[in-house]
Amino acid sequence: MQDFLQERRTVRKYKNERIPQQTLDYILKAGMRASNCGNMQLYSFIITKDEEKKKQYAPLHFNQPMITQADVVITVCADINRFNHWCEINNADKSLNNFLFLNIATIDATIAAQAITTAAESKGLGVCWVGTVNYMADQIAEFLHLPDGVVPVACLTIGVPDENPDLTERLPLDAVVHSETYKDYSDQDIRNMYEAIEENPVNRGYVKENNKENLAQVFSEVRYGKAGNEEFSERYMKFVKSTFLKQ
Amino acid sequence: MQDFLQERRTVRKYKNERIPQQTLDYILKAGMRASNCGNMQLYSFIITKDEEKKKQYAPLHFNQPMITQADVVITVCADINRFNHWCEINNADKSLNNFLFLNIATIDATIAAQAITTAAESKGLGVCWVGTVNYMADQIAEFLHLPDGVVPVACLTIGVPDENPDLTERLPLDAVVHSETYKDYSDQDIRNMYEAIEENPVNRGYVKENNKENLAQVFSEVRYGKAGNEEFSERYMKFVKSTFLKQ
Repeated sequence: MQDFLQERRTVRKYKNERIPQQTLDYILKAGMRASNCGNMQLYSFIITKDEEKKKQYAPLHFNQPMITQADVVITVCADINRFNHWCEINNADKSLNNFLFLNIATIDATIAAQAITTAAESKGLGVCWVGTVNYMADQIAEFLHLPDGVVPVACLTIGVPDENPDLTERLPLDAVVHSETYKDYSDQDIRNMYEAIEENPVNRGYVKENNKENLAQVFSEVRYGKAGNEEFSERYMKFVKSTFLKQ
Repeated sequence: MQDFLQERRTVRKYKNERIPQQTLDYILKAGMRASNCGNMQLYSFIITKDEEKKKQYAPLHFNQPMITQADVVITVCADINRFNHWCEINNADKSLNNFLFLNIATIDATIAAQAITTAAESKGLGVCWVGTVNYMADQIAEFLHLPDGVVPVACLTIGVPDENPDLTERLPLDAVVHSETYKDYSDQDIRNMYEAIEENPVNRGYVKENNKENLAQVFSEVRYGKAGNEEFSERYMKFVKSTFLKQ
């Protein structure tokens, strides 16, 4: 068996097989067992299993096929609604509707989502993190009937794997790890770190296809271009102000 | 052996034993293997091992003893500095200095931090997430010499466990899990969900000690009071504007 911590890969193709409820419960409990701020559990897990619902959900994820093909889709949300409600009926202040706790609840939801991922993978299941959730948070909130104070953070598609893709490339370990203090990079350091990724034939193909000079331009001007990022960024800010940060 | 996914506990007391470099590398590699947006790896791991450095670091974490007692402290950061530098030397736009990517890089750093946590726990090590990192991000950035574009997200203390604490309480699974759409709570739902936590003798003790009417007030007026949260929230916003969101 692969070491699922060391040789972890994203799985986007799934067999048409159900995940037993017992396994799903195991996975969700692992998410709830992970570390979280003050044990306030500022998160909720929305489970999408219904076929029709998945079909309706897919366009909000730019129709990526994992949404309909996976047996289970879990949208993990930062959630102060439950906690606020508890405060309300106890005549207690509401103190979490600020940027600090948006950050903390986002982190705690992510910890839970990664714990769910690892637990699923430990049971031989395949998982894909669907990043569109951050771009489309406002519309997804509407679709999932999220009340004020609940922000989608992660979307996981989970199913029985129908592929075992090659490991994707990574930067060398010492490009990411710093000893004691951050050691900033020279131009030559950066060139050396990215060389293997730039030389990868698939990536060279992307540069050519997109008529760009190099891979950095493919990333920052095609895939994650400034104008698009800023548009989604404003949408996201507007959304969190209207829900999580609301007075 | 405990199921480290299902019976996970925070470990705050460590033996005076070293973690072998090979184990540390295994753990860090697991962090790098986890899912991340577009494989851009927008994170850095700062390792604090030096005794003197840990002593200096501790006050920035309100002198919590885990910082000096753990063999290794890992500060996991959201990082667009490396990626920006790559863009710069490739004549490519810088497109990530916005709120959307602060959120995405925070999520990716957290995924990596949780993957590091699980890998450490799978090797029998004990881990504590030190939440002060989010409160003190500005000063921690200075201490760790973080350049513009690098924001501390998670701080993990890791060592050989010298305690095996009881599992902490959690809300019931169905308080956190929603089927298909978010099912908002009635007052009675909330009362039922929190009952076991409120009745816990330790928590009842906190209510008494703090002269409060109930546990919700202890959380939202003592531990995570509004004024303090808002002060730290403003500091955090000011900090991320001066570094990550900088034009």
